[in-house]
Amino acid sequence: MTTMPNWLKQRAFLTPERTAISDGKRTKTFAELYEAAASWARRLAGAGVKEGDIVAVLMKNSVEMMEIVHALFFLGARALLQNVRLTPYELCWQLDDSGARVVIADDDLAGRFGGDGRVITVSALAAFAEADVLLKETCHLDETATIMYTSGTTGTPKGVLQTYGNHWWSAVGSALNLGLHERDCWLAAVPLFHISGLSIAMRSVIYGMPMQLQTSFDAKAANALIMDGKVTVMSVVAAMLQRMVSELGAARYPDTFRCMLLGGGPAPQPLLEACKKKGIPVYQTYGMTETASQIVTLAPEYSLTKLGSAGKPLFPAELRIMRDGQPAAPYEAGEIVVKGPNVTKGYLHRPEATEQAIRDGWFYTGDIGYVDEEGFLYVLDRRSDLIISGGENVYPAEIEAVLLAHPAVEEAGVTGVEDETWGQVPYAFVKLKQGAAADEDELKQFCRRRLATYKVPARMYFVPALPRNAAQKLLRRELKTLIPEAEQRAPRR
Amino acid sequence: MTTMPNWLKQRAFLTPERTAISDGKRTKTFAELYEAAASWARRLAGAGVKEGDIVAVLMKNSVEMMEIVHALFFLGARALLQNVRLTPYELCWQLDDSGARVVIADDDLAGRFGGDGRVITVSALAAFAEADVLLKETCHLDETATIMYTSGTTGTPKGVLQTYGNHWWSAVGSALNLGLHERDCWLAAVPLFHISGLSIAMRSVIYGMPMQLQTSFDAKAANALIMDGKVTVMSVVAAMLQRMVSELGAARYPDTFRCMLLGGGPAPQPLLEACKKKGIPVYQTYGMTETASQIVTLAPEYSLTKLGSAGKPLFPAELRIMRDGQPAAPYEAGEIVVKGPNVTKGYLHRPEATEQAIRDGWFYTGDIGYVDEEGFLYVLDRRSDLIISGGENVYPAEIEAVLLAHPAVEEAGVTGVEDETWGQVPYAFVKLKQGAAADEDELKQFCRRRLATYKVPARMYFVPALPRNAAQKLLRRELKTLIPEAEQRAPRR
Repeated sequence: MTTMPNWLKQRAFLTPERTAISDGKRTKTFAELYEAAASWARRLAGAGVKEGDIVAVLMKNSVEMMEIVHALFFLGARALLQNVRLTPYELCWQLDDSGARVVIADDDLAGRFGGDGRVITVSALAAFAEADVLLKETCHLDETATIMYTSGTTGTPKGVLQTYGNHWWSAVGSALNLGLHERDCWLAAVPLFHISGLSIAMRSVIYGMPMQLQTSFDAKAANALIMDGKVTVMSVVAAMLQRMVSELGAARYPDTFRCMLLGGGPAPQPLLEACKKKGIPVYQTYGMTETASQIVTLAPEYSLTKLGSAGKPLFPAELRIMRDGQPAAPYEAGEIVVKGPNVTKGYLHRPEATEQAIRDGWFYTGDIGYVDEEGFLYVLDRRSDLIISGGENVYPAEIEAVLLAHPAVEEAGVTGVEDETWGQVPYAFVKLKQGAAADEDELKQFCRRRLATYKVPARMYFVPALPRNAAQKLLRRELKTLIPEAEQRAPRR
Repeated sequence: MTTMPNWLKQRAFLTPERTAISDGKRTKTFAELYEAAASWARRLAGAGVKEGDIVAVLMKNSVEMMEIVHALFFLGARALLQNVRLTPYELCWQLDDSGARVVIADDDLAGRFGGDGRVITVSALAAFAEADVLLKETCHLDETATIMYTSGTTGTPKGVLQTYGNHWWSAVGSALNLGLHERDCWLAAVPLFHISGLSIAMRSVIYGMPMQLQTSFDAKAANALIMDGKVTVMSVVAAMLQRMVSELGAARYPDTFRCMLLGGGPAPQPLLEACKKKGIPVYQTYGMTETASQIVTLAPEYSLTKLGSAGKPLFPAELRIMRDGQPAAPYEAGEIVVKGPNVTKGYLHRPEATEQAIRDGWFYTGDIGYVDEEGFLYVLDRRSDLIISGGENVYPAEIEAVLLAHPAVEEAGVTGVEDETWGQVPYAFVKLKQGAAADEDELKQFCRRRLATYKVPARMYFVPALPRNAAQKLLRRELKTLIPEAEQRAPRR
């Protein structure tokens, strides 16, 4: 089967009166969400959007954002979801790389594109006349629904292609693992432009389940929704969970709350233990943009006995640890390799990177981990050099490339350093060119114009040389040894 | 995606310690079920079963039966599931038609095949040595997993091909509609050789959910399992539900029981109303062998307001009412036509019947119904002439063909008559050849040798002529007018 009914249309037909989405200000049923999305689709067609077009979306979490994403599905356009924390430089780079034809941006974000003629604000779009266009009533599972940029070891961001099938199987695999209750309501306090948020929106239409949106994460409000029994499942990263646990104080969640899905990198053991004590049902999970969210999740019955493990693959997926081209033995660390219908078919306009990442149907994540004798995954390191800061992926190579573009910089190395609030923050180590001069402030300022704030190095050290191996490959993990000892004990941002 | 991990192997890997199946005598976890099935697979290989073979299975509901079906999946063989109520004549006809290479039969049923050399009893199979064979670790969704014979308007039974994909999508579609709870346990008191029972077994491995088996339906025991909170979902036909409601008396089911899935033909309104009064959560459903069980089911929120409706399609499926080659308007009766990944790809060795039934990807059910203005399906008549007796499909044409084979019979017509216990029973109307003689007992005896007991006409009338239209087509619905008036008021079996 490669085609199925358009999800929102089918859901609006099957259960029109159920609540689909609420952002606190507005609540819409599936019938209302469908009508609104269909109307946006006709306006987008009026603005010239056609089947197959890539349309960038730069919006904060809102009911409108989901309406516009579904509207793009109705037209057969591909939604390029952009991170609102990126700089104009990064955003425009994605437009050029993808060949996006149109950009839909929140009114207050449109300025980021510096007057690019492709940009239409949400207000402007609302003023377009509705064109007479046939909305697609089916979706092809092999077709690209969404695109999200992610960097990697090379430092060049790549557009991850997410098909309808990837989203569908991700939602089904999650339901088979976490179950599906009539009264479920999933809180999306993570961004919809990340797969962690978007996957909640996909589950909402596929399951016929309400989703509750937060425009930006609010620990107190999230706790209140859980305490009131309005939210039964929530997706978080460790930094969010930490704040919710602190805010919760001595209180305990009610039984209606059944799943705290914890992703975005390894979680600190003390946090997991605190949750265990409070009876918070934490489900550790492992996934990435390329796997359309979770691919490995700890099943309910192991949430306590296998604390710290990311679990086992979802039902339709498979997992291997590879070491020197061979499957590794239990407890032997190696590269985490995954397979399944939720795994991307590749990167936009990057056949070589795709071939390198997907071999024999297996996706090589670049992450390091091991499995125990029962097959439970333990993630040791994300993508060798990946830094996860407050749930956002930060790629050292991307920051290094920016630093190297500064006329005074000869060599640059970036690594992640533990941080109580953000999990990790990037630190930079710079060797200046002979005779050149630049200070920390100047280089940070240089980075700020080109990199989202969370990517700008928290600290910058000037060193006479960077650690390299015999092949002159930068040894990023040894960078930390260059930090003065006092600093290692008391990191600051 | 066309391949996925073998379901039982994956389930045994993911949740080995969960209960998989219990028949009251034995209980097995998924790990134990896997080990047992793998062992049977090696014995079946020892008995000569190879990939692609059709292997008939004539067994009553038992843990072993499911082990053997999974064992056949491990070998890539196709399981032909035979109805234990069929006569030797009917069973052997299926073997010849399908080209089955081997038959696995319960010890006490093996005699039905009259010494056919292909038959291996379960005891004999257990004594085979385990062959050294590679078990299949994946399944292809397009490949045939099981075959079930069903008749139809032509009277010739046809083998319905059920792929792994049909079973998979059926299970997923059902979960998206009925939900999936951690403590779910589904009672299979319907036969595993019918799709209503087999689909429970497929859901069990796909969901990681225990199934409780009854070898034959026991209303009292079923009620006890529900009252004890051990069973949360059950599949029934109207006759079974009627007995359970009577047996229940003034008692009420606990809240743990969340779904009584009622299929197998239209349900009597008084029964539905009795269930409504007792708070029994009845979910009416419509499906058939060709749709791998449910394809239309009433969603929870409409179970009371749309009483009598079979509901709307499952999420991945679609429904149309066709009349004179055009989609019918709401409330206009026509043929029920369905589409979806759970629908069969066709009939074994019957390209013409397949082409006739499946047109442009839509399956023409032959059943008559209408939809209301919201799209809820109301089934008026199953397959024009289909009789549903105690949940078993009875095809008039099949019985007529047997009667016509009797030397004294010139014409024969069969129709269903309402029956309090069985819902419907078949009545036959016979015109004898001029000068020929035969009485009711003789013809019934003739039928009994060739037809399962539930297909043997409950009454037989000798008439001078059968009602036919201008084209001489038998008008089966008018047959009832030939029943003497007194008989119409007091049918007997």
